[in-house]
Amino acid sequence: MDSDTFKDFANEMIEYIINYVENIRDRRVLPTVKPGYLKPLLPSEAPQTPENWKDIMADIERVIMPGITHWHSPKFHAYFPTAQSYPAIVADMLSGGIACMGFSWLASPACTELEVVMLDWLGKMLDLPKEFLSSGGGKGGGVIQGTASEATLVALLGAKARKIRQVKEQHPEWTDNEIVGKLVAYSSCQAHSSVERAGLLGGVKFRLLEVDSKYKLRGESLAEAIRKDKEQGFIPFYVVATLGTTCSCAFDRLDEIGVVANRENIWLHVDAAYAGSAFICPEFRYLMKGIELADSFNFNPHKWMLVNFDCSAMWLKDPTYMINAFNMDPLYLKYDIQGSPPDYRHWQIPLGRRFRSLKLWFVLRMYGVENLQRYIRKHVEQAREFEAMILSDPRFEIVAEVVLGLVCFRLKGSNDINEALLKKINDAGNIHLVPSKIKDMYFLRFAICSRFSESKDIQNSWKEIKLRTDEVFEEQSVSK
Amino acid sequence: MDSDTFKDFANEMIEYIINYVENIRDRRVLPTVKPGYLKPLLPSEAPQTPENWKDIMADIERVIMPGITHWHSPKFHAYFPTAQSYPAIVADMLSGGIACMGFSWLASPACTELEVVMLDWLGKMLDLPKEFLSSGGGKGGGVIQGTASEATLVALLGAKARKIRQVKEQHPEWTDNEIVGKLVAYSSCQAHSSVERAGLLGGVKFRLLEVDSKYKLRGESLAEAIRKDKEQGFIPFYVVATLGTTCSCAFDRLDEIGVVANRENIWLHVDAAYAGSAFICPEFRYLMKGIELADSFNFNPHKWMLVNFDCSAMWLKDPTYMINAFNMDPLYLKYDIQGSPPDYRHWQIPLGRRFRSLKLWFVLRMYGVENLQRYIRKHVEQAREFEAMILSDPRFEIVAEVVLGLVCFRLKGSNDINEALLKKINDAGNIHLVPSKIKDMYFLRFAICSRFSESKDIQNSWKEIKLRTDEVFEEQSVSK
Repeated sequence: MDSDTFKDFANEMIEYIINYVENIRDRRVLPTVKPGYLKPLLPSEAPQTPENWKDIMADIERVIMPGITHWHSPKFHAYFPTAQSYPAIVADMLSGGIACMGFSWLASPACTELEVVMLDWLGKMLDLPKEFLSSGGGKGGGVIQGTASEATLVALLGAKARKIRQVKEQHPEWTDNEIVGKLVAYSSCQAHSSVERAGLLGGVKFRLLEVDSKYKLRGESLAEAIRKDKEQGFIPFYVVATLGTTCSCAFDRLDEIGVVANRENIWLHVDAAYAGSAFICPEFRYLMKGIELADSFNFNPHKWMLVNFDCSAMWLKDPTYMINAFNMDPLYLKYDIQGSPPDYRHWQIPLGRRFRSLKLWFVLRMYGVENLQRYIRKHVEQAREFEAMILSDPRFEIVAEVVLGLVCFRLKGSNDINEALLKKINDAGNIHLVPSKIKDMYFLRFAICSRFSESKDIQNSWKEIKLRTDEVFEEQSVSK
Repeated sequence: MDSDTFKDFANEMIEYIINYVENIRDRRVLPTVKPGYLKPLLPSEAPQTPENWKDIMADIERVIMPGITHWHSPKFHAYFPTAQSYPAIVADMLSGGIACMGFSWLASPACTELEVVMLDWLGKMLDLPKEFLSSGGGKGGGVIQGTASEATLVALLGAKARKIRQVKEQHPEWTDNEIVGKLVAYSSCQAHSSVERAGLLGGVKFRLLEVDSKYKLRGESLAEAIRKDKEQGFIPFYVVATLGTTCSCAFDRLDEIGVVANRENIWLHVDAAYAGSAFICPEFRYLMKGIELADSFNFNPHKWMLVNFDCSAMWLKDPTYMINAFNMDPLYLKYDIQGSPPDYRHWQIPLGRRFRSLKLWFVLRMYGVENLQRYIRKHVEQAREFEAMILSDPRFEIVAEVVLGLVCFRLKGSNDINEALLKKINDAGNIHLVPSKIKDMYFLRFAICSRFSESKDIQNSWKEIKLRTDEVFEEQSVSK
């Protein structure tokens, strides 16, 4: 493929993307295809000789689009937002053009150094304690991980290495395996499934602790669990506090948990995957009260800050333990000036890494902090707007405090009727929501996701929900 | 950023990329910057208000390029190739435009289903046994991982889950932790550092076994290690065979190792990260003799098959154990039609995933199998050309069989003189190589990496090496 063809193909793709995103409202948010739809649309083997790029372009609407769930439609209210923005797409083009590997400083100094500076920019935007910043004068610094799951796992492995070392100082006769068998980690029972999974992957016990009436993990619950575990000879080593749970966007009491964790010498990791972006607005920073007590902090600009996936920002006060846990330096990766700038391969699970900080750089500069704050605030306002609609209809109830861009609600009544409502909504496919459940209470999650979302979209989604609710009630009265 | 600005910015970026890659020879392959060069070039905080995209474009040459190691220069011979191609860049643009998450089928059916079909296309291109293909009639199938490190770790976790289950059937009274403490994994001492690291992350013992005179792991070494371990009460559960080691591109004797692994009921994972791409050429498939004995197989199209990072292809004969090891299904990720198509979140460490199969699709169609084969063969020819140059100069020796696109060589004599040569080459910065060491023998690795690499580039690199060699010898004779 020569450069002229590339130019034609890429220019056409830009037109396609613009057309796709600017008119995304016109598409049914959920696809109607059945499992296995795609295979018959393609040959069973790769072509022997080159095809024309125009045939590929044509196949996007024929093969791909029928099977796309449109995450950037204002009618998409499932999960949490995932980011998409023009500056991030352009930055990824450059990253693809340079296509360097950033596993060590020498492998491309710019790739490592821009990441260091961008994580400082971002940390300052959130007003993180300076101990987390590379410019803070200590050991701290940030890194881009692929996902929050990886950040949770990386922090757990760092915590595990630190605790094994501490225990060995007191009990040099214990083997690693004996110590690992006693290690216990904690999180709220409302933490993301990836948190418990990190325990599974790391081969340690993980306790999911009960929450208070607002679905928050409290310091006393953690303290009590630790007390019991220590009595039985277990060794507490790691706790994850979630700021903005996936189920209901609840905020663990970081200020309380932090005090317990620090007192007990346990690594405190903060998972603010979704909510962290809101902390660029000063009025939401009360939600991270106690952050100075944490060892590591993570949020996903690829969720709510317009930086395309993957860009999960993680900061550590002291990366030493994690680095040592991962460090294996064969000669082909060594070079003379090893030392001052981080060798990010020791900060992550994979070895290879793309030039992802370009996305942060382009997005921050093309939006500016003010527009990003405006974007967050607009979503929060729309969530409040939707909450008011729910409260205006006596058939519904709100099941969790609306703090940011997620509204958790349900029909007053049984789980069955709520399941019936959700099925009707998603079967109609005009809008898309996913459910959640806390303590056997089934409810619907309404997340503001699209960067195109306007007040009128919320009103339309609400109309759709009311329509499907009417249908559910009609069917129920008929069947009685 | 509105769509018109996006179009201008993106079009300018396409021009920039074309200009960058088509003229990449003109740039010094290694940067001259010192650690910390970048920070003073940028403000210390993100801008409050938007900047102009033209300022960002201008900053690429001012800030980024001085710190880039040009991986796609024909003068770059370090590590192994990393892929960059025009069709892959365009595909990533589309992936960024759609920006869906592919963690479950419903989250975007096309994202999952294209991946299934592309891994079958690719598997057929390599002539993998049909047990690995989703169309093979069994449980098998492929998945795109981020890196080979992740594939090695994922396979290890699957193997661990399988073995724990098997052992528990015989010893229901043993705890998981007791069993894990006995587990042992194996690989060649020449395996990539990420292989041993997978053991570290997975919390199991890992033995690096000795190789034969051609740096290959043999079946009898594995059998002997297993015998000793079993005698001592350990439980062998996992072995990684490397096809194309990083140090010297050696090929473990998969046919021998496979027999032992199958007999001992040990999970056999094949890491062909670099070399796997060559198996699209029938004449290189002898190197994967015994592949039918493996449980999982992995190679990186993002290395040598022109698909930009990240795209690490992995196939499993039976993903059940791995899926069960990872499976945690909260309600917000469940949906009705769970079942037939894979939910790829259970096949990987992270939860989120981009639409990466688009890259495979675009590259396979825009090149066609024939051109990809031609590309592999051209690199192999150039490696042989370079080998002949080395052999023509009596000062040098070849230290490992040249099988694909890597030539391992050294000056006859001490390690010191070879270290001096490498330092001189990289300090001059006209070409870039990295060293390796096997059993205290230090040598230089010359990899053919660039898709622009031509015979004349190899000749130029050879001239540069001879020039620096002359300098080394001159200095040596002066200092005597």
